[in-house]
Amino acid sequence: MNRVVVLGVGMHPFGKYPQKHIKELANTAIWAAIRDAGVDPRKIEAAFVGNCLGGVLLGQESVRGQVILRHAGFKGIPVVNVENACATASTAFRMAWLSVASGVHDVVLAVGAEKMYIGDTARSIQALTMATDVEVAGNMGLQFTALYAMAIRRKMDKYGWKPEDLAKVVEKNSYHGSLNPYAQFRKPLTVQEVLSSRMVADPITLYMASSIGDGAAAAVLCREDLARKWSEKPIVRVAASALRSGQGSLLEAHPRESTTWLTAREAYEQAGIGPEDIEVAEVHDAMAPAELKLYEELGFCPEGEAVRLVREGKTGLQGQIPVNPSGGLCSRGHPVGATGLAQIAEVVWQLRGEAGDRQVRGRNGIPRWGLTQNDGGFVDGDTAATAVHLFQRLD
Amino acid sequence: MNRVVVLGVGMHPFGKYPQKHIKELANTAIWAAIRDAGVDPRKIEAAFVGNCLGGVLLGQESVRGQVILRHAGFKGIPVVNVENACATASTAFRMAWLSVASGVHDVVLAVGAEKMYIGDTARSIQALTMATDVEVAGNMGLQFTALYAMAIRRKMDKYGWKPEDLAKVVEKNSYHGSLNPYAQFRKPLTVQEVLSSRMVADPITLYMASSIGDGAAAAVLCREDLARKWSEKPIVRVAASALRSGQGSLLEAHPRESTTWLTAREAYEQAGIGPEDIEVAEVHDAMAPAELKLYEELGFCPEGEAVRLVREGKTGLQGQIPVNPSGGLCSRGHPVGATGLAQIAEVVWQLRGEAGDRQVRGRNGIPRWGLTQNDGGFVDGDTAATAVHLFQRLD
Repeated sequence: MNRVVVLGVGMHPFGKYPQKHIKELANTAIWAAIRDAGVDPRKIEAAFVGNCLGGVLLGQESVRGQVILRHAGFKGIPVVNVENACATASTAFRMAWLSVASGVHDVVLAVGAEKMYIGDTARSIQALTMATDVEVAGNMGLQFTALYAMAIRRKMDKYGWKPEDLAKVVEKNSYHGSLNPYAQFRKPLTVQEVLSSRMVADPITLYMASSIGDGAAAAVLCREDLARKWSEKPIVRVAASALRSGQGSLLEAHPRESTTWLTAREAYEQAGIGPEDIEVAEVHDAMAPAELKLYEELGFCPEGEAVRLVREGKTGLQGQIPVNPSGGLCSRGHPVGATGLAQIAEVVWQLRGEAGDRQVRGRNGIPRWGLTQNDGGFVDGDTAATAVHLFQRLD
Repeated sequence: MNRVVVLGVGMHPFGKYPQKHIKELANTAIWAAIRDAGVDPRKIEAAFVGNCLGGVLLGQESVRGQVILRHAGFKGIPVVNVENACATASTAFRMAWLSVASGVHDVVLAVGAEKMYIGDTARSIQALTMATDVEVAGNMGLQFTALYAMAIRRKMDKYGWKPEDLAKVVEKNSYHGSLNPYAQFRKPLTVQEVLSSRMVADPITLYMASSIGDGAAAAVLCREDLARKWSEKPIVRVAASALRSGQGSLLEAHPRESTTWLTAREAYEQAGIGPEDIEVAEVHDAMAPAELKLYEELGFCPEGEAVRLVREGKTGLQGQIPVNPSGGLCSRGHPVGATGLAQIAEVVWQLRGEAGDRQVRGRNGIPRWGLTQNDGGFVDGDTAATAVHLFQRLD
């Protein structure tokens, strides 16, 4: 297999853009990634485009990527449309990686774009419930906030997590988000503000939940041996790509039996490293307290010790293992089909030392190893798709 | 790159199945493919699932493949949902091929499933118009039958094609379909019946058009060096996979400038053969007369000579280059997200000599080389996705 690098990344800031078509959001991200890569756009051989809800929310059921790519000025190159619920963009990235790793393509584009804000929150939320088996869970009214609430309630009972611990995650991530020009929400929140916001599904309050938003993110990937032809920036290699569907129980699984752990272990093995090597991580906190659960499932701490990490500030910007420096899904935002590539963009910026005010400190200066974890959908009691990618700065 | 073979194929017969969920259609195809492959199902490492219209027609916008795979008894393996309008299943197959060619997986599943018949033809047809840029063509009411009508009218003007020639293609393919137990329509039609059926969009009459249908098709792919571990059947290799988006004009392009030609040429080069080597082909005749156009675009005859092929019976079952032995999209049926894999299944059966009454004769007995061509969508004046695959029987 060819070694693959991320040559460039780009985003359209996340937020609500009632005046912008999804094509415009994607166009901004695509060209930002191409400029960042320094690559001649005519060298791009294929595009893998992720979008989640365009059929039911925008009436663009088919060829969503072709419509986006054509608007961005591309013709003739193969476009593959990819979907995997909230893990859509990570899956598009994985397909792009696969196409270069295989030797079929040298330079490709991965895009994730979503327009969820259509002026009708009920319809947007209904569309999100279609990331379950609609014949089963969707029609029961079992919505994602409720699922997360149940999972987190179990952890509170088992490990003694307090409401303040959950809110502490939001305090940390909203501070990170306040430093991120791409973030949907830039107001730092206090533990007290989080706890006193409206209860959505006990124990999840409004400020603990990600919200409706629009946005796009993109990456240019290429063969490692071609990277220096275009870019003088630090080279960030895709050290591992792992994807699984859940086979256990999202609510009941022990951290070391969870789908995230199984996926992460596969990634760690591919890269030949362990969780202790990770210096920065972007993880799927669609409901912020889920981040605590993920510390254990990614191996960042032993079982039951997640709250210690956040109480002691270890996952803050200047902590030992900074998590969600972008602000995560609740602050940077979660336009579902774009999220995975926004995580990847953030990690690439961090590994290059380009993250500005929110730059994390690695063990020896700018971090060398980064991780992204992205979850999507809920089928038969577990996640429908969990993607873990590892990134390594080479120089 | 690893060499990849199609170890097994399976289908649910195409038709209208108001009593069956899409999961059941897919389940039948998946397990038929697994049994055909002889593979231990626990060895299947990943699935690439194509579906086109499930969001707007079935309310299953996300994780369509996970819902299908879970119903079929699979858990834990990665599932990637792929869409490319009517070329959806070919694209899912290409992603599956890529994953094995790259060395990431050894044995994978490609699935295409569609349920278009929901008892409301207007809604089904409206969903199909979403395979254009809905902001542009879709909202103009420019429907696919009209597009094909314009393209074919141009050819009639330029090359002197007669309405009888168009009907002759349907006569041939409906006879093929009458021999195919998987076909939606099994009544052989005469030229006169085709011409006297209702005019839909001049020159296309009702029997020249593919119709609303349900169905599923699947394939098991694996590394060539593992094939003999499970299967004693003739081994069919994926000799080429090519995918492009259109960059010209579907209506105006000279055959040798068409997207199908550009895609086919790429495939022929990959395989190191030419159109003269093809002994059986399944092509995208969503409107049957388009088959004539494709003869020229695939290089089966020089420009302007397509009608001669069909007038002389050269593309019939016992002809020199049999095209659409399955009955093609008008007779076998065209449940859009399943079609590409149904084409592939047919070619695999033909290359193995397992096609029963509709078995074609190759140059030296059972054919050795087969081709599939699958078109999807319409963006900015040309096809959104054209896929060409070449298959070679090894023994």
